[in-house]
Amino acid sequence: MLRKIKLNGLFKEPGQSSRLLDSVFKSKGLSINQLSNNSSSPSTAIFMLNMGGPKDSKEVEPFLTRLFLDRDIMTLPMQDKLGPWIAKRRAPKVAEKYNQIGGGSPIKDWTDKQGSLMTQILDKISPETGPHKHYIGFRYTAPLTEDTIMQMENDGVKRIVAFSQYPQYSCSTSGSSLNAIAKYFAGKTPSIKWSFIDRWPLNSGLIEAFRDLTNKELQKFPESVRDDVVILFSAHALPMSAVNRGDPYPTEVGATVIKVMEALNWSHPYRLVWQSKVGPAAWLSPQTDEAMEGFVKRGRKNFLIVPISFVNEHIETLHELDIEYAHELGEKLKVENIRRAPAPNDHPAFIKGMADLVKSHLISGQTCSRQLLLRCPLCTNPACSQTKSWIGSLS
Amino acid sequence: MLRKIKLNGLFKEPGQSSRLLDSVFKSKGLSINQLSNNSSSPSTAIFMLNMGGPKDSKEVEPFLTRLFLDRDIMTLPMQDKLGPWIAKRRAPKVAEKYNQIGGGSPIKDWTDKQGSLMTQILDKISPETGPHKHYIGFRYTAPLTEDTIMQMENDGVKRIVAFSQYPQYSCSTSGSSLNAIAKYFAGKTPSIKWSFIDRWPLNSGLIEAFRDLTNKELQKFPESVRDDVVILFSAHALPMSAVNRGDPYPTEVGATVIKVMEALNWSHPYRLVWQSKVGPAAWLSPQTDEAMEGFVKRGRKNFLIVPISFVNEHIETLHELDIEYAHELGEKLKVENIRRAPAPNDHPAFIKGMADLVKSHLISGQTCSRQLLLRCPLCTNPACSQTKSWIGSLS
Repeated sequence: MLRKIKLNGLFKEPGQSSRLLDSVFKSKGLSINQLSNNSSSPSTAIFMLNMGGPKDSKEVEPFLTRLFLDRDIMTLPMQDKLGPWIAKRRAPKVAEKYNQIGGGSPIKDWTDKQGSLMTQILDKISPETGPHKHYIGFRYTAPLTEDTIMQMENDGVKRIVAFSQYPQYSCSTSGSSLNAIAKYFAGKTPSIKWSFIDRWPLNSGLIEAFRDLTNKELQKFPESVRDDVVILFSAHALPMSAVNRGDPYPTEVGATVIKVMEALNWSHPYRLVWQSKVGPAAWLSPQTDEAMEGFVKRGRKNFLIVPISFVNEHIETLHELDIEYAHELGEKLKVENIRRAPAPNDHPAFIKGMADLVKSHLISGQTCSRQLLLRCPLCTNPACSQTKSWIGSLS
Repeated sequence: MLRKIKLNGLFKEPGQSSRLLDSVFKSKGLSINQLSNNSSSPSTAIFMLNMGGPKDSKEVEPFLTRLFLDRDIMTLPMQDKLGPWIAKRRAPKVAEKYNQIGGGSPIKDWTDKQGSLMTQILDKISPETGPHKHYIGFRYTAPLTEDTIMQMENDGVKRIVAFSQYPQYSCSTSGSSLNAIAKYFAGKTPSIKWSFIDRWPLNSGLIEAFRDLTNKELQKFPESVRDDVVILFSAHALPMSAVNRGDPYPTEVGATVIKVMEALNWSHPYRLVWQSKVGPAAWLSPQTDEAMEGFVKRGRKNFLIVPISFVNEHIETLHELDIEYAHELGEKLKVENIRRAPAPNDHPAFIKGMADLVKSHLISGQTCSRQLLLRCPLCTNPACSQTKSWIGSLS
């Protein structure tokens, strides 16, 4: 967690802000050291869903193999053969990227920290549903979603709140995690009560964390250019084929962006741009890198990148944004100043926002959002239909 | 204004709700009859910008000719010849559509009414900037933007607030109106003080009006199916070529949609869908009609269409949504119930929201939003660059 990130010619330690925040939490009677102090037979499990990331270079190929086999994220011809083949071919290059950010993805550590801090707050603000314990379900690396479900069942939890760690819903991310859960139960009703937090693009803690992190990062620009900064909200892109089927993701990302700008009192010009496109097909555009290049050509030279669809650091922020765009492309384009705001990570407002969200979800008695049960108008994935029927049957 | 719209097998009179609202306004000491009672030498002109619509069938061809000649909305090869040629060819078909909704577009009448009611409120809540008078600047029909600027100059107004009537900014709509204003002044500083309200996707009156109108329309569904209704937020589409250059419109429309759903406490499933695509190139998708068809195929049979990017009725709501989709397509697809929420029109919350917006703009002292001065990262329109320089020079 004390990995150094080269950013704008400076070294920045994410651990630094973590240590600072630890003291904030301590002052409120909360402590990172209580991480594993939750009861061993918790009443409410908060099941944090994400795709995960390889913890070291050995994990890269199995991670990519699971990803390229996932029909919820992409469909390939002869996927059972082609998926592993692409994974094997890509693994060395991807492993090299992980080596450049310290050897592996920090997503597991961050999620653990977020979960521990969130459940400590929940034990205080919602004692009637406690003790709470966080669990992690990743799609493509340990702890795998299916394994953690077994673990929660063995632990004898009374209810499970499946909490997508993507604030904005996409069929290829949150949807894939939910499909994995539904597949595990194969249409049967689980013995434990389940419910789902499937999207939270306007969560007040999320917006406040992004506002604060963006604002703090703006203060680090030389005062003489601060007014000139263009804020680039960078979100993971999606193929247009998914968008055109009716995937709700771009609408929800747009809402988060505009709410953050409202919270910033529209202090700077901005654009929502899209990163991490793969392959030749059309994806959401403009892309982060082409937008940077376009703005430079049109006279702008100071940029702040805000990773608006990510709640913690992983390779898309630490490598793609920090190394490839902020450092390498920034140098090539001769930008004057470029900085990247941290992901929400353990920002106190963010942690509090997650805890409040879970509490109000528990009080609501809802199984999931009404939106979740509506298939995309042009959905082609039979797994989505089965998942929605199954979740609908739990209400 | 008492034109009948065939909708869901019922006739609905927009005039009915207008008359109802007139009495609401009267109870507050406001009156539609005061429309032209504003001072003849107003202090502040509120210059309401929109594309307009032909008032009768004779106006259709000149309207379309101006539209197809506008390089801000589209570029065509040999546009000066091809634009009028396409306009002439299309005019009879389009005129027939206007005949089906009563002979012409009601956009001028609605805008007049909105402007009169808004300025009456402004005279009360912001007497220090009064008297206020609304003016209308259309792009493709009378009163044309350029003519109204001359009119305001002749009227001796002290300041002009150019107020885009598109809540969500697109280079092809609000941008085109601003380009027309900048072109009029050809780089020179006007003798009158100008400022610009260029976007307002989260305006509280706008959101409240859409919430109320959506909710009221939901109550008109049979109780037995009300829970099953899918809300289709239908916005005017945009070519992907514009979106991919960085046009901020889809992001801002997404924000309005999600805020309305938040205000409705996420009561129903919904999707943002896109209408009015023309030609074979890729536009924002899914389209309203294909989404309806897709949802019906996937088992949904009750729909409420909400025209989220329009602030008053015109051909896209009265013909495309009401006749082509709600009536004809609805019948073909055998939907059970389909209704369309009215545009904000003269909804009291909407009128109040516009007045509050103008008041806070006047207090702010801002010339325009900071966002307006940033060109799209891949902008190809030299007029945009000139307009932004000119507006920037007025600060």
